[in-house]
Amino acid sequence: MDKFELVNRVLPQPQAAEATDEHFAPSNIALCKYWGKRDSELNLPINPSLSVSLAHLGTRTRVEPIEGPADDVWLNGLQLRADTLFAKRLSGFIDLFRQTSHQAFRIETRNNIPTAAGLASSASGFAALTLALNDSLKLGLESSALSMLARLGSGSACRSIYEGFVEWHMGHRDDGADSHAHPIDRRWEGLAIGLIKVDEGVKSVDSRSGMARTVESCHLYQSWPLQANTDLMKLHQAIESQDFTLLGSTAEQNALSMHATMIASWPPLVYWQPDSLAAMQKIWALRQQGLEIYFTMDAGPNLKLLFQQQDATEVLAHFPDLEIVLPFGS
Amino acid sequence: MDKFELVNRVLPQPQAAEATDEHFAPSNIALCKYWGKRDSELNLPINPSLSVSLAHLGTRTRVEPIEGPADDVWLNGLQLRADTLFAKRLSGFIDLFRQTSHQAFRIETRNNIPTAAGLASSASGFAALTLALNDSLKLGLESSALSMLARLGSGSACRSIYEGFVEWHMGHRDDGADSHAHPIDRRWEGLAIGLIKVDEGVKSVDSRSGMARTVESCHLYQSWPLQANTDLMKLHQAIESQDFTLLGSTAEQNALSMHATMIASWPPLVYWQPDSLAAMQKIWALRQQGLEIYFTMDAGPNLKLLFQQQDATEVLAHFPDLEIVLPFGS
Repeated sequence: MDKFELVNRVLPQPQAAEATDEHFAPSNIALCKYWGKRDSELNLPINPSLSVSLAHLGTRTRVEPIEGPADDVWLNGLQLRADTLFAKRLSGFIDLFRQTSHQAFRIETRNNIPTAAGLASSASGFAALTLALNDSLKLGLESSALSMLARLGSGSACRSIYEGFVEWHMGHRDDGADSHAHPIDRRWEGLAIGLIKVDEGVKSVDSRSGMARTVESCHLYQSWPLQANTDLMKLHQAIESQDFTLLGSTAEQNALSMHATMIASWPPLVYWQPDSLAAMQKIWALRQQGLEIYFTMDAGPNLKLLFQQQDATEVLAHFPDLEIVLPFGS
Repeated sequence: MDKFELVNRVLPQPQAAEATDEHFAPSNIALCKYWGKRDSELNLPINPSLSVSLAHLGTRTRVEPIEGPADDVWLNGLQLRADTLFAKRLSGFIDLFRQTSHQAFRIETRNNIPTAAGLASSASGFAALTLALNDSLKLGLESSALSMLARLGSGSACRSIYEGFVEWHMGHRDDGADSHAHPIDRRWEGLAIGLIKVDEGVKSVDSRSGMARTVESCHLYQSWPLQANTDLMKLHQAIESQDFTLLGSTAEQNALSMHATMIASWPPLVYWQPDSLAAMQKIWALRQQGLEIYFTMDAGPNLKLLFQQQDATEVLAHFPDLEIVLPFGS
């Protein structure tokens, strides 16, 4: 299945493009990870996933139709050359929306995600761009269609269309039309996320390649869907009953299991740094002492803490540089 | 199935015990790991494993019948109190051989395994003790029966009955009578093993408990037998064709996959220290530069290098404290 075919079926006839205001999409952190694709053209996952959006942290994007043959891409106030990877990826995504026209755009996009916190900006970035294009072209799409379209830019972008807890239904169709996220109708005041900075370096292996290597070479990966589906059920239960111990322990085991599939790949894919391991050991020691903190990690060396707002003072005493996010406000 | 029943069926009528000379059994390093039991009383594994014995490194043990009710256990020249874990474990094992008598023994056992190299002494220890008891009681057992008996002391001890490459057939019988090791009739001159010291501390979780936790709580473990069986085939092929790249890469992925199942357990079982990870990164960087070195790890933080004797000078330049073992001589 080709993604242009899919988009063709979903999109109404676009109107003439108009300039938009800024559209915001939040970054998100998966508590049950997306790891492995069954279709890399369509970003179709092998397992369902569940995330929490990071409130005010994310991407703001506006688009404006321009004359001329090429898009004009601005990132955090700087104009990018058309041959940069970032500009090419954005323009390639916009191509999906301009199959019958040659309309070029000026795209202005800004991230307020703390650098070096290990938060991918592609999820919020493609979600915000999708929202802006929907507005500019007056497509009037529903959220589920916007989520599906954002997915074509970056898989986890489908979750960044929504606030709060979000589940990505993996779907089962070959064309991916049923693979999109939806919001979970539950809030959790007092849930806190802490961003620990371990390493600012560029990853040696990007997530896309890492997933492909894992799916191809890791035998243990065959049991990953079982892990993910079990964790998804537990997370729903934890969110329903506001059971923090269940939420934290499930998210931590899920993240460690994802990293386990990487570690068991060939060549080995180990995103951990010695400092990551030291941070884990510190967290486990504190938990042993009675402080209820858990962590999750994505395809990088950084840890994200999960804790309850009531423990914020104590957590900050142990991690003074922590940047705290309250996904549901305080 | 009770282990006393099993031993009863295997043992001939023991003769009156006699004092023995020292019996030696080598330590062994698994290239395809034993991880997980289907029967913890009988030490029956969930997967087959393959090891290489460490030549002169191991345990020497002699036994001597003594008067009195209790065994007298000496370890490395020091007499142990009867209530130490070590003495109790040894006496418990000897109980299997004295079902019809109350013969006590003086057991003198010595390890020449470098301390802090992360080599378990239980494998060579129970193998040497089995050999000594076979001699003392004039049982005249075949190697395969000795291997099966040693297994009841410590699973991997069944492999330490032999020199060189050794395979442990997991067997399928409930009584464990078909679960023992046998030697692989191939030598590999020039194969070198290097012991890197990372940490001397006592492990927080012993292998027996670690295996049990993994089997109980790790979803990814369901695919571990597939990994082990695949690796076993590859190792046979590597040994047959003396293909060092295949041997090393298979052993390294096998060890990392075993650790992956630990990491994905709950509570997480992470034997790695930050220094372990730093050593791995050093090995991967050197391999990238063309030096063919691989590593394996057991349930602890220490790494064991696999390389070819021809590269020993270069390997020593990077790891000056390395203790090198040549399993088949130089």
